[in-house]
Amino acid sequence: MSQGSIFLWELLGTSVLILLGTGVVANNVLRRTNGNGGGPLFINIGWGFAVFTGASLAAPTGAHLNPAITLSLAIADKAEWSDVPMYLLGQMVGGVLGAVLCWATYKLQFDDHPEPGGTLGIFATAPQIPHRVWNFVSEAIGTFVLVAFVLFSPVFTDAGGVPNFGNAALGYAGVAFVVIVIGTSLGGPTGYAINPARDLGPRLAYAFLLPIKGKGDAQWGYAWVPVAGPIVGGALAALLFLAYPSA
Amino acid sequence: MSQGSIFLWELLGTSVLILLGTGVVANNVLRRTNGNGGGPLFINIGWGFAVFTGASLAAPTGAHLNPAITLSLAIADKAEWSDVPMYLLGQMVGGVLGAVLCWATYKLQFDDHPEPGGTLGIFATAPQIPHRVWNFVSEAIGTFVLVAFVLFSPVFTDAGGVPNFGNAALGYAGVAFVVIVIGTSLGGPTGYAINPARDLGPRLAYAFLLPIKGKGDAQWGYAWVPVAGPIVGGALAALLFLAYPSA
Amino acid sequence: MSQGSIFLWELLGTSVLILLGTGVVANNVLRRTNGNGGGPLFINIGWGFAVFTGASLAAPTGAHLNPAITLSLAIADKAEWSDVPMYLLGQMVGGVLGAVLCWATYKLQFDDHPEPGGTLGIFATAPQIPHRVWNFVSEAIGTFVLVAFVLFSPVFTDAGGVPNFGNAALGYAGVAFVVIVIGTSLGGPTGYAINPARDLGPRLAYAFLLPIKGKGDAQWGYAWVPVAGPIVGGALAALLFLAYPSA
Amino acid sequence: MSQGSIFLWELLGTSVLILLGTGVVANNVLRRTNGNGGGPLFINIGWGFAVFTGASLAAPTGAHLNPAITLSLAIADKAEWSDVPMYLLGQMVGGVLGAVLCWATYKLQFDDHPEPGGTLGIFATAPQIPHRVWNFVSEAIGTFVLVAFVLFSPVFTDAGGVPNFGNAALGYAGVAFVVIVIGTSLGGPTGYAINPARDLGPRLAYAFLLPIKGKGDAQWGYAWVPVAGPIVGGALAALLFLAYPSA
Repeated sequence: MSQGSIFLWELLGTSVLILLGTGVVANNVLRRTNGNGGGPLFINIGWGFAVFTGASLAAPTGAHLNPAITLSLAIADKAEWSDVPMYLLGQMVGGVLGAVLCWATYKLQFDDHPEPGGTLGIFATAPQIPHRVWNFVSEAIGTFVLVAFVLFSPVFTDAGGVPNFGNAALGYAGVAFVVIVIGTSLGGPTGYAINPARDLGPRLAYAFLLPIKGKGDAQWGYAWVPVAGPIVGGALAALLFLAYPSA
Repeated sequence: MSQGSIFLWELLGTSVLILLGTGVVANNVLRRTNGNGGGPLFINIGWGFAVFTGASLAAPTGAHLNPAITLSLAIADKAEWSDVPMYLLGQMVGGVLGAVLCWATYKLQFDDHPEPGGTLGIFATAPQIPHRVWNFVSEAIGTFVLVAFVLFSPVFTDAGGVPNFGNAALGYAGVAFVVIVIGTSLGGPTGYAINPARDLGPRLAYAFLLPIKGKGDAQWGYAWVPVAGPIVGGALAALLFLAYPSA
Repeated sequence: MSQGSIFLWELLGTSVLILLGTGVVANNVLRRTNGNGGGPLFINIGWGFAVFTGASLAAPTGAHLNPAITLSLAIADKAEWSDVPMYLLGQMVGGVLGAVLCWATYKLQFDDHPEPGGTLGIFATAPQIPHRVWNFVSEAIGTFVLVAFVLFSPVFTDAGGVPNFGNAALGYAGVAFVVIVIGTSLGGPTGYAINPARDLGPRLAYAFLLPIKGKGDAQWGYAWVPVAGPIVGGALAALLFLAYPSA
Repeated sequence: MSQGSIFLWELLGTSVLILLGTGVVANNVLRRTNGNGGGPLFINIGWGFAVFTGASLAAPTGAHLNPAITLSLAIADKAEWSDVPMYLLGQMVGGVLGAVLCWATYKLQFDDHPEPGGTLGIFATAPQIPHRVWNFVSEAIGTFVLVAFVLFSPVFTDAGGVPNFGNAALGYAGVAFVVIVIGTSLGGPTGYAINPARDLGPRLAYAFLLPIKGKGDAQWGYAWVPVAGPIVGGALAALLFLAYPSA
């Protein structure tokens, strides 16, 4: 596949993933929406099926949609290192674009929101209790589970580096279920970025693009955690995969 | 397939879709039901599996059940333009019939309802914050995601214009998951019609057919938004599909 | 398949279905449980996956587990009329046995319950607003949807009268999704028996077997509705199936 | 498969299962999390997809992840008795490791918790109403349903003792749905251990490993129930399987 095609498919999938993922938080948090106060399961199911939808759109590239997955697959020899930069570029631009689309969907609600300074949480993650080591650990463990599923579940039955998620329309439902449970079970402390593009892309959009009056600080001091934690957690899953006995 | 068969299958699928979709809102809104106050996730899951059920009944026509899908498939050269009118007719009549069946199911609750003037929301969508441009944008973005899933997910593996949603009993579960997440994530501002027949059919039934004493106005001033927004959003997805590189 | 085998498989599947279905209501209603106050979606998902589990156990007979399905399949020429009595017997005995198992699971909670007279609702359905015609209509419409899914979704690809629900472990998930949405959308007025054995079996167990001190009346005056409504609704779906053009 | 491989795969799957399962309870119970007060369905769905994820990682061994399943499969002649000890060892060590990982994920929340003496319930089950006979019965019935699904659903189509759960990425979704419904429907009285390793492993970790200041007693007096109940319930399902007529 051409480098341009990698960019376009990852852009498409990631932008829809981020539109839907940030959208469920907007729906839950903003007032005068139908989803206001939907609660934790509402948000977790929203993010899970956001991944399902975005991934389904990007099947040609294997639907990484996540730099931690791309890097882990490269470490595990399931993706080409030469393709990695273009995967990451598509994912990052997709993260920014998805956040802009979320803003457009909820534009009236953002204008109406009484505390615009508190809207960063719709786009970027934040720790419930800030701590640089343990927040990092939470993100790394969550991403370890995600990448371990992708690598260890019997998905790579072809040699082409493209996952074989089974039948067409339900292909990525398994990943959706895993993302739901990472949310319900490991998302408590940091909001489960488990994806650098999911956090950094919308954070950049919030800081530099979105015209939200009175918007708050982008909290750049925390921004490295949801980048480094997922990369390290995913890499550990890839190394474990390489070390395990063949099935 | 004959024009009459197109009509009958789309009528069957759409009427069950609308029965179940408007039914979950009735169950949530009306008092003296088992679902009263079920909440946002309850409604979103209800609508998602409403689509699953309706679509499963209409497999022979590809289960469009939605003028925005039919028109988008025609634009993308996946449906015949000559079949479009009959698809739309079946969908519109199905939308009306489904609303009537919902009313029959909840007849006693409608009679018991203390605010019959507020029952339009069971059948037709309404914006949380009315605005002709941004409500249109919300509906267009939601429908874009739905149609993009239908077109971009690896579903059209045959040439006949009939989607191949995989194994029989679960065929349309993928679409259900997408509709659930459109609800959780993009349904906040306008209630995600994302389907002209879903909104216009029940609105017509409410205005002209349903014998609800003291029923309210049908809000025709808003009715164009959940028609035009979905059609434009779906068409944009179809154009993007035509412009994208082949996988 | 022998008559004895039909009985045994339907008994197994129906008893587990009823154990799990009545169990979720017990968990929701009784105090000092982990599920107390779980709410409508909790109950609807419980019943849906109760059907999934029970049906998965009874694959050899096609997992009817419901007299309305057995009779409808016979009308639609998908089951042998000569097998019908044994299907129904297995289902009814299964309904009784499942209720007994539910009682055993929650025995301590039943003993602890402050209002034992109100425990019928764990086992049998009751209308929110009693009315013999419209309660019947609600049950008939709900069962129509269930049976229509079984008949119209592309499930009967073999000629043997045994549904082909696709791949092994997920075979009956489609039916589960339909039962979930019947609950969220049509269960509001009467509690969606949609299955004579589901209501009559546990009602018989409650009236004559379960040793619940101070238990209430079995409300036999209503018991015909969740029997007749489902049978008529299912039969209408079967007649529609016979009348529809072949796909 | 070598004994070492059995250990490693069961260890991997069970540790992730327990990490995610205890994690959802931590998220629900501890304050200053995103899932605080998520409720019963939140917990049940978390445990269900925890099983899905853990099982997907351990496909090479058939993903028992549960001594009650291993023993039942051996009784039903679907697993080798000589492999049983290593299966159980991997499961028990996995249960301990998963609890440690859960603690690490929520380390800051444990430090912050105002009632550290009440944190046992995150790791081990406890009865709502203590009673040695009926608590045992509840656990036995819940495990009977789980093992009956594994044995009776049309899963064992090969002779190798490895379940065939169908298509790759969704293979274990069926088990997840069953675990969800066991939670919603049978988990009310005792918290549905239905797995000796799920309860005993984290209980051991809580008692001897986890550095939670002010932690409470490990309640060893109850610990035999979630071991013996599941083993007996699973064995009964295996015996029933052997006694049933062949399909």
